[in-house]
Amino acid sequence: MKTLKDIGEHNAIAALTANLKAVGDDCAVLSQEGSLYDLVLTSDPLIQGVHFTPDAAPEQIGHKAAGRVLSDFAAMGAEPQYLLVNVVAPGTENVERLEKVYAGFTTLCERFDTEVVGGDLSEGPAFELHVFGVGRVPKGTALLRSGARPGDAIYVTGPLGGAQKSGKHLTFTPRVTEGKWLRECGFVTAMMDLSDGLATDLRHILNASNVGAEIESDAIPLNGTVEEALFDGEDFELLFTARSEPAADCDIPLFKIGSITSEPEVLTLDGAVLERKAFEHFKD
Amino acid sequence: MKTLKDIGEHNAIAALTANLKAVGDDCAVLSQEGSLYDLVLTSDPLIQGVHFTPDAAPEQIGHKAAGRVLSDFAAMGAEPQYLLVNVVAPGTENVERLEKVYAGFTTLCERFDTEVVGGDLSEGPAFELHVFGVGRVPKGTALLRSGARPGDAIYVTGPLGGAQKSGKHLTFTPRVTEGKWLRECGFVTAMMDLSDGLATDLRHILNASNVGAEIESDAIPLNGTVEEALFDGEDFELLFTARSEPAADCDIPLFKIGSITSEPEVLTLDGAVLERKAFEHFKD
Repeated sequence: MKTLKDIGEHNAIAALTANLKAVGDDCAVLSQEGSLYDLVLTSDPLIQGVHFTPDAAPEQIGHKAAGRVLSDFAAMGAEPQYLLVNVVAPGTENVERLEKVYAGFTTLCERFDTEVVGGDLSEGPAFELHVFGVGRVPKGTALLRSGARPGDAIYVTGPLGGAQKSGKHLTFTPRVTEGKWLRECGFVTAMMDLSDGLATDLRHILNASNVGAEIESDAIPLNGTVEEALFDGEDFELLFTARSEPAADCDIPLFKIGSITSEPEVLTLDGAVLERKAFEHFKD
Repeated sequence: MKTLKDIGEHNAIAALTANLKAVGDDCAVLSQEGSLYDLVLTSDPLIQGVHFTPDAAPEQIGHKAAGRVLSDFAAMGAEPQYLLVNVVAPGTENVERLEKVYAGFTTLCERFDTEVVGGDLSEGPAFELHVFGVGRVPKGTALLRSGARPGDAIYVTGPLGGAQKSGKHLTFTPRVTEGKWLRECGFVTAMMDLSDGLATDLRHILNASNVGAEIESDAIPLNGTVEEALFDGEDFELLFTARSEPAADCDIPLFKIGSITSEPEVLTLDGAVLERKAFEHFKD
């Protein structure tokens, strides 16, 4: 018998989704007959002991649960519209804490004009929030991971690393506004949000676009060490590739960290090939 | 400190959703600017030890997870289009079991032309599936709980009771086809699916419509005892009210079990007032 621990998250997802249409971007993008917009869908779990510790501020737990999903919309340049949230909690869960979690959740939704329209509350052994999001993007304009081309510049929208240590993983602002602006400006070729660390996430773009990349450690905006920026994750900044420089009047912070190369899936840091290394659920 | 066990599921949901727009039907129905369809959204959890036992057949666990959400669409007369599923499992979870769960899930989705377009796999202490559904219904035609009027007849689409004992809760066919037909036929005034037992669910219609109801035990189609039909739950048949008889050529099984009365929220069985009694999460 093989367990999830034996094969790891990525292999398990690959096995389960083998028969489905390509799943790989931060959201599913679905064209709707007769509509000017594509439908954009995503879901994210937030599990106590996995995505936050029991002593995290309740409002911040709710903030992170909503923020992760809103960040998925940002990653596509999409507009979030509706969220649903399934809450799981043991019977011993403190109701006041739950109300604060919910308040943190709805406060962030309101900031981005996103309405909470449903959900569920069930009994279970761990405290969890499962958030589902529905949004839209003008037909055919969603930014995917697959559009990067050799010669494109690589950018991030803010400093990276140390998000767990600093607590930023609980308080980050999802880059919904920036994502929409980047889609509208027209120079972005591929985009995603940074949830697993720059090195790991950039590989998703390389893989989907069948290209390579060279990045410079000096150019990476840092909240911690370079190692942390590459592998920590949960920065929830945007990572994108662009075929030209942003316009001079661009008032969104953008940091150019490298360029796309033609050698498929080869990622170099300061000229040296960077090895794979990343957190993966079910693997130690 | 108050816990969820102290106040129960319904009070907790009421406290959490106090600031939201009315949430109450099986799905949220949202009008979309410039579209001929309303957007229909729902989510349901399926948790080991709560909604199924560890020894349940894996394919049936997946079937039930999809079926609960598809039944929500049926309840509105809506057409399900897309599902996303967040899977939570401990690292010791058997991968082969998980593949069978997923196969049961996708097989039922395919039967109702519903596409699985995304989801997530995370580590957690219990085996859970959180399913999110997106669908549509022609603008303004969704069947709500709030349309029942005195004099309407009350119907169900199939035999009730004993769904846990018989295993039907794991193998039921969601009434998507029947729900769509009932919406199109135009004589239905209110509808929902039977997940918590006839007595408990009928009260939701009475409450939303501000009416009462009288039902006859002899008229209830049974899979178990009358008590089980009233309070067991998980039959996943449709419960609806109608202003006239179905057409003679209706080939969907329909069972008339009583009528709507004008006395708000008073439910009688064989002429005697029926007391409230129902399973509620967090309450013993």
